[in-house]
Amino acid sequence: MTRITCPVLSSKVTSAEEAATYINDGDRVGMSGFTGAGYPKAVPAAIAENAKAAQERGEDFGIELFTGASTAPELDGVLAEAGAIRKRLPFQSDPALRKAINTGATEYVDTHLSHSAQQAWFGFYGNIDVAVVEVAAVLPNGMVVPGSSVGNNKSWLELADKVILEVNDWHPRAYEGFHDVYYGTRLPPERRPIQILDPMQRIGDPYLRVDADKVVAIVETSAPDRNLPFKSPDESSKAMAEHVVDFLRHEIQHDRLPENLLPIQSGVGNVANAVMAEFAHSEFENLTAYTEVIQDGMLDLIDTGKLTAVSATSFSLSAERAEAFNAKAEEYKGRILMRTQEISNHPEVIRRLGLIAINGMVEADIYGNVNSTHVMGSSVINGIGGSGDFARNAYLNFFVSPSTAKDGAISAIVPFASHTDHTEHDTQILVTEQGLADLRGLSPTARARRIIANCAHPDYRDGLQDYFDRAVAENPNGQHTPHLLAEALSWHQKFQAEGHM
Amino acid sequence: MTRITCPVLSSKVTSAEEAATYINDGDRVGMSGFTGAGYPKAVPAAIAENAKAAQERGEDFGIELFTGASTAPELDGVLAEAGAIRKRLPFQSDPALRKAINTGATEYVDTHLSHSAQQAWFGFYGNIDVAVVEVAAVLPNGMVVPGSSVGNNKSWLELADKVILEVNDWHPRAYEGFHDVYYGTRLPPERRPIQILDPMQRIGDPYLRVDADKVVAIVETSAPDRNLPFKSPDESSKAMAEHVVDFLRHEIQHDRLPENLLPIQSGVGNVANAVMAEFAHSEFENLTAYTEVIQDGMLDLIDTGKLTAVSATSFSLSAERAEAFNAKAEEYKGRILMRTQEISNHPEVIRRLGLIAINGMVEADIYGNVNSTHVMGSSVINGIGGSGDFARNAYLNFFVSPSTAKDGAISAIVPFASHTDHTEHDTQILVTEQGLADLRGLSPTARARRIIANCAHPDYRDGLQDYFDRAVAENPNGQHTPHLLAEALSWHQKFQAEGHM
Repeated sequence: MTRITCPVLSSKVTSAEEAATYINDGDRVGMSGFTGAGYPKAVPAAIAENAKAAQERGEDFGIELFTGASTAPELDGVLAEAGAIRKRLPFQSDPALRKAINTGATEYVDTHLSHSAQQAWFGFYGNIDVAVVEVAAVLPNGMVVPGSSVGNNKSWLELADKVILEVNDWHPRAYEGFHDVYYGTRLPPERRPIQILDPMQRIGDPYLRVDADKVVAIVETSAPDRNLPFKSPDESSKAMAEHVVDFLRHEIQHDRLPENLLPIQSGVGNVANAVMAEFAHSEFENLTAYTEVIQDGMLDLIDTGKLTAVSATSFSLSAERAEAFNAKAEEYKGRILMRTQEISNHPEVIRRLGLIAINGMVEADIYGNVNSTHVMGSSVINGIGGSGDFARNAYLNFFVSPSTAKDGAISAIVPFASHTDHTEHDTQILVTEQGLADLRGLSPTARARRIIANCAHPDYRDGLQDYFDRAVAENPNGQHTPHLLAEALSWHQKFQAEGHM
Repeated sequence: MTRITCPVLSSKVTSAEEAATYINDGDRVGMSGFTGAGYPKAVPAAIAENAKAAQERGEDFGIELFTGASTAPELDGVLAEAGAIRKRLPFQSDPALRKAINTGATEYVDTHLSHSAQQAWFGFYGNIDVAVVEVAAVLPNGMVVPGSSVGNNKSWLELADKVILEVNDWHPRAYEGFHDVYYGTRLPPERRPIQILDPMQRIGDPYLRVDADKVVAIVETSAPDRNLPFKSPDESSKAMAEHVVDFLRHEIQHDRLPENLLPIQSGVGNVANAVMAEFAHSEFENLTAYTEVIQDGMLDLIDTGKLTAVSATSFSLSAERAEAFNAKAEEYKGRILMRTQEISNHPEVIRRLGLIAINGMVEADIYGNVNSTHVMGSSVINGIGGSGDFARNAYLNFFVSPSTAKDGAISAIVPFASHTDHTEHDTQILVTEQGLADLRGLSPTARARRIIANCAHPDYRDGLQDYFDRAVAENPNGQHTPHLLAEALSWHQKFQAEGHM
């Protein structure tokens, strides 16, 4: 049964190849997609083919590509491999695209996810030429039922000169009613308060609005989202999850958290998923979440009844879990609300609700500066994503990582961060499998003592303590954040030279 | 004529020495003061005397000191010189205290100014034992008219077990009606939207509430605030101010700003003051400000009619200007509103109003990471203050500094920031007297080219370009943020070794 029941729009159904002809060299293109969910499945490949054909003719072909966050091989992958992405924002995690960025073929503007829509509206990126947005259905009145992610779709549909829709019947038709698209955003000085008082509060419409006159093509697809499967929690992830959950118990005992906590935000990845698994085995009840993505672990928590309400902007489910969800989506209605990312990640709402934010990191230095994005200072991995939106404005923030990487060759705790995404002013609680360091209300040197003692791997602890002790001894007038500048980045240099810190 | 017209409270008037006896070794003390304005003038000196006497007896005496922001020699100065401050937050700028911090005598927790009150309420700092708050008058009903700063006074008065008031008749009695103290703050999950839609909107009371039962002493004083005088803008400051104002004109021309701009936030210091002077000579009309402090330059803008409304949490006026203001305070009523710093610096309000934020910096690296706090990585100067609250959430943010310091021995543009307070994700526009670099929507390498070309001093430009070029050449797989780790901090090391970058 067709998902397009609007007569005006159904006349625009065409092939991906035909749709892709509307996208020209140099265009700024806003696409759907937030993690491997809700991204267009067909048009990007057709654009990539056009790019390759143009290049074979000796012509340039490249676009500036804007999305919600990361996408999947069928979007970032095919376009990066075709050399068709000149500039990319606000986030990515695709291997081919990462390579294009780190070899200088693609410019990447790594942006707070809550900033991306508003900066587009402010005109900071220039005109958006085309929107390519995947949806679940087109209603008779031309309104659109979003799919498994909302992201920046509202903004791309409104800002773009031309609109291409992909209608994917893999998304459950039952998605109707899952979404809350806020149409109250304005530009300053016309902005008004965002009146969300709890995670499930509706302030918008269940549909995306589309200007039919701008729609140049609609492509029908039937293809699954593609997210990476989750590993079952290993010992290290379980240990980190236990540290987090034990600390939350401690905070309840000291009357700094209510019994059912505060709304949880959990970053993407295996550790975050392990924390959710730990909650599943815990005594906690009536939990809520106000987060970016719903991973397998969070869906499990809903299934067990521990988690009663989740606001997010996207699903990020393993293939198996996504199929299971789609088969009984109706049962989750009223317990899951999908918002635009400018609302899911909005500082105003995050601060008001008082979130417990749990995010991964690449490394932290001994003073609590956190690197979430770079390897050895120069190469970017993924990007800052929403971690800054959440960490800065949360009630409590956790940054979590195994204490070592590359089979122990890299320490996640270093003398000096090789890149800083979250400053010492913003990081509260660091967690590795070794332990947890509560940095709240501590000076930098007090933080260093606690991070080294609690979080560093034993193989690196003495080296960090030695760096710190000598930095203290050699900076009689620099005792606030003592550093040895000649050695500050030496651990990273050693890794570059010898393959081991 | 007495400023204390409440019978219950007037019975508690006593000497500073008597009041100081309520403050014990180990106490956490919340004091008023935001810049050299509205800080207690008498009790701190008496505490310092008690500390010295205790030390002479061989006893320990130290407090944890919380304020609004920086204060003045009569508060931070006397207590630091007496060795009486064990821990200090959220901000400081006093020479004696800075020395105590950088020599390790005092722990300093450098905190976003919007975070300080809420973190105290969250219980992250422990119990507040005593509040010492300067006010302008005590009304018959026991309510209090605040003075020249509001800062965190509401929170200290509510959180502390004991309250000491200093009633200073140097503050104009006409302050009554200048303040808007918001009593709608709650702890999560009970928080509600802050319904401010424009800088002058009132959402609170003109008075601070004081629990008379907690008041242990009231001290009468008659002493002026003490802020540093401003230098008249030099050529460098004028050049920076011109770059900022020209850029705002450019943004209006491109329809990215309304004719009367958006509310201005301007950091403390001579450059910020110079920008205000530049506005005074400009064609702009009907400007507004939503800021932390009102400096001389902003008052001048009010006097000329260019600036119609200012919301702030404190004055920071030169002695001369403060006397002139006090003599005719009544005339400014309705054009100035003084709020608590949790509201003046609140991300929710800053983002909604869409501020133009102008803040100083110590250094920026070629990729746009900004250091606002540290010299050569280890020694702290002042602190992050409100710069993070404003920069992250502003519509436009400017970071401004002369391109060199110490008569040219230090470049404000460096290969790698020796400390990061504002990350590459948060900085939009860098300004030196050399020029302006608009970094919006640019990748790190594009930013580097622009910063080096537009902002670096000619004496350092080639060196920066050389570092960048070699970093690009030597990082074939690290083209996102190319660095030479062995040289990244070498400019700072050279300064330490040779006194010159």
